[in-house]
Amino acid sequence: MTLVLASSSPFRATLLKNAGLVFEAVAARIDERAVEQPLLEADLPPGDIAEVLAIAKAENVSPARTGALVIGSDQVLSLDGEILHKVADMEGARRRLLQLSGKTHHLDSAIALVRDGEVLWSHVERAAITLRHLSPEFVGRHLAEAGETVLSSVGAYQIEGVGVQLFEKIEGDFFTIMGLPLLALLAELRRLGAQEG
Amino acid sequence: MTLVLASSSPFRATLLKNAGLVFEAVAARIDERAVEQPLLEADLPPGDIAEVLAIAKAENVSPARTGALVIGSDQVLSLDGEILHKVADMEGARRRLLQLSGKTHHLDSAIALVRDGEVLWSHVERAAITLRHLSPEFVGRHLAEAGETVLSSVGAYQIEGVGVQLFEKIEGDFFTIMGLPLLALLAELRRLGAQEG
Repeated sequence: MTLVLASSSPFRATLLKNAGLVFEAVAARIDERAVEQPLLEADLPPGDIAEVLAIAKAENVSPARTGALVIGSDQVLSLDGEILHKVADMEGARRRLLQLSGKTHHLDSAIALVRDGEVLWSHVERAAITLRHLSPEFVGRHLAEAGETVLSSVGAYQIEGVGVQLFEKIEGDFFTIMGLPLLALLAELRRLGAQEG
Repeated sequence: MTLVLASSSPFRATLLKNAGLVFEAVAARIDERAVEQPLLEADLPPGDIAEVLAIAKAENVSPARTGALVIGSDQVLSLDGEILHKVADMEGARRRLLQLSGKTHHLDSAIALVRDGEVLWSHVERAAITLRHLSPEFVGRHLAEAGETVLSSVGAYQIEGVGVQLFEKIEGDFFTIMGLPLLALLAELRRLGAQEG
């Protein structure tokens, strides 16, 4: 069964490759903020929004890949129930880290499987991350060390790199934090016969 | 403050490097099985044994590195309370995976900080991993794909590679599973002034 990852994220692709999956990566072309807006207005919780976005990405790629199993995924970061989006530059990263400093935020990571426009399965997992109290000076030095890679993450940190220096506490699955609840996906792929069991 | 990692494990060194630590790695020269034997006879739980071994490794390296903060670490895998050790070859890996198949085993990861022979701090964290029910055929194919890297891990799997295909459930911190409770270590290094906060 042909597998397609509806994402251009190198991090998600690496997770799947490391797990031994063979797939093609195709970027979904949807306006995520436009999809999200009415859901925010309807007060949907962050996990549901992540799930809808994961489905929307897979649905967007599905027509071009007849018969293929398309994997859509999304991750939403929320702080006190408010959804935060990726920052654009290092000044944004500085403000993001100071905003998250000393607080617990949530990461909802969703995944969806779509074949020929039909949603076969979707799933969301949540992780909670508490940042230490960070001084502006520490954040400045930290970002100089971490570099622009932080801009690829909505939290402006990388748990697999020096970002781990920011954390007080991590609750939840590593793969959920990385943006793709891998164990649940692998279980479903086996159930669908797309992975040998 | 000079940091020394009392280990020749490339995995532990990579975890520390990724976190931005600067350190020297020095292999501890102790007979782990000889240290462990009386502790097993005294019925010490696996976590305590991991802690003693982490301290023993740091103590072993400390005399050669006056004034340095020496990090010792150890990981113990136990199944139904029985401690299992690393297997020697791929046939051993095959038997290990079939032994763990369909069951939950525990990983106790310990870390110790020693300076000039004095134990400044030690800490243990536990993770629980449940393997799926694996057929001998699946295990054979899996090990052919995973290769001899599995021999570097007591569980004969690598969570960061295709080993994730083996898992039903993972409970516990990623770093604990990798063999080094990193958040606790970083917090203690900051407290000791060995890392800027």
